[in-house]
Amino acid sequence: MTEPVFRRLCLVGAGLIGGSIARRARERGDLAGEVVVTARSAATLSRVRELGFADRVVEDAAEAVRGADGVILCVPVGAYAAVMRRIAPALEPGAVLSDVGSTKGSVVRDLAPLLPPGVHLVPAHPMAGTEHSGPDSGFATLFEGRYCILTPQPEGDAAAAEKVAEFWRRCGSLVETMDVATHDKVVAIVSHLPHLIAFVICGTADDLAEETRESVLKFAASGFRDFTRIAASDVAMWRDVFLNNREAVLEMLARFTEDAQAFGRAIRWGQEEFIVDRIERGRKIRRGLIERKQA
Amino acid sequence: MTEPVFRRLCLVGAGLIGGSIARRARERGDLAGEVVVTARSAATLSRVRELGFADRVVEDAAEAVRGADGVILCVPVGAYAAVMRRIAPALEPGAVLSDVGSTKGSVVRDLAPLLPPGVHLVPAHPMAGTEHSGPDSGFATLFEGRYCILTPQPEGDAAAAEKVAEFWRRCGSLVETMDVATHDKVVAIVSHLPHLIAFVICGTADDLAEETRESVLKFAASGFRDFTRIAASDVAMWRDVFLNNREAVLEMLARFTEDAQAFGRAIRWGQEEFIVDRIERGRKIRRGLIERKQA
Repeated sequence: MTEPVFRRLCLVGAGLIGGSIARRARERGDLAGEVVVTARSAATLSRVRELGFADRVVEDAAEAVRGADGVILCVPVGAYAAVMRRIAPALEPGAVLSDVGSTKGSVVRDLAPLLPPGVHLVPAHPMAGTEHSGPDSGFATLFEGRYCILTPQPEGDAAAAEKVAEFWRRCGSLVETMDVATHDKVVAIVSHLPHLIAFVICGTADDLAEETRESVLKFAASGFRDFTRIAASDVAMWRDVFLNNREAVLEMLARFTEDAQAFGRAIRWGQEEFIVDRIERGRKIRRGLIERKQA
Repeated sequence: MTEPVFRRLCLVGAGLIGGSIARRARERGDLAGEVVVTARSAATLSRVRELGFADRVVEDAAEAVRGADGVILCVPVGAYAAVMRRIAPALEPGAVLSDVGSTKGSVVRDLAPLLPPGVHLVPAHPMAGTEHSGPDSGFATLFEGRYCILTPQPEGDAAAAEKVAEFWRRCGSLVETMDVATHDKVVAIVSHLPHLIAFVICGTADDLAEETRESVLKFAASGFRDFTRIAASDVAMWRDVFLNNREAVLEMLARFTEDAQAFGRAIRWGQEEFIVDRIERGRKIRRGLIERKQA
């Protein structure tokens, strides 16, 4: 039997992602010898106990990470600094500290300064999720066939990075490595901006005069329906994503807004060629995605 | 056996929508006694003959509509004026002229002035579609359970409107009636603006520096993938939609842009409450859609 990646793994947070990791570890023997779960709310702790996907449930975060050779933060990225202040003194020398956040610049900013000597930080971002959240929403196959991006620090420990990579491969993920700045730009356009747009357009529709709004709900065609599916995502997670990938999100929003205004101007002035060119680019990108079997 | 709605139905255009209507009529006996199809391109005409879903395929549009008591325009809305100039002299007194376009103000603008006396105009918009186009893409169940919006003219013939309503009910659609201006506003926000955004964001991604762009294609998460699915739609159809629902699309784009800028400003200044409020409104609209079983 293959040796587990971590002797004792502590998951800080047990929502969709943390709960899915725990279930995966429970299903296979090669991720962690023991899974310890800690969470902030009493409701979550009690639900995790009921669901039974952790070997131990520990209320105090510092107590939970003690003795763990692997710690993965699975809370909204806005909570990292506070969590780190609590757990840093209890982290074991030699332990690997990782996370699952959708922003990586903020993670390095919030975790690196408090990192005890001998503890290795390997930020990770599994690109998987659903519109559901909470401890009940996780499942063992969530990460299968999905990318997981690691942003190890250039001066970091190579063995620790390889441990985290192997962990995610065993979760079924396709592991890629990227620098922090590139990661934050890429996710800003492929994920954060689309979510921002989805949240905004729902609000725009909600602000319409009563009669039109009722019809909007009634006739929401596929276009709008896809947007609202995105918009159903977890509130705290997305609040923190926007606040913690601020520069990249604002850059992509600015670029998108310029392009949307140019498209609007083309509509106003009847510039057929411009409009056709933009529609055809959309189709081209779509074909690119299909060729990459991501569609 | 139920009497067919139309003795002889002429479909002008045989793409996704026209081809689906013809297949539905072929499958059931109660839509049309005879289905005549005409189309502009020789390739489409020849393909329709091969597929065999029409009783007759006629090259000349005026010849095709002659003797028909029902005519449905199934071409991009930008082609309506030219088609109408060709067919108007051949339309039979008493015939019902309808269409399937996504804009309705432009349809009345382009068709009503050329309408011969005794021909009844009943604009219709079946809210159904896929990302595919052309005569091969249609199927008989496309309209089942989907809304079809009629925008009959206030001074129009009630019996003609009822004929078109019954036609769509027999196609499986939920028929609703609306005035032209409300229709154009509602579809601008539920369909046209989401498509505009999808086309634009693909272009924004395509304009990124080469390295980031490659990663964008590789890591396109679900958010961006949903957008590109929308963006795969037919070019000529969407060009004509934007150009022919200009005022409503520009109004909705302006409202959306203001709201997106406000969201961006909240990110820049770290206004958590504003961001949370907007995310929660998205979830609320989503719940509204689920309650209406449109999700």
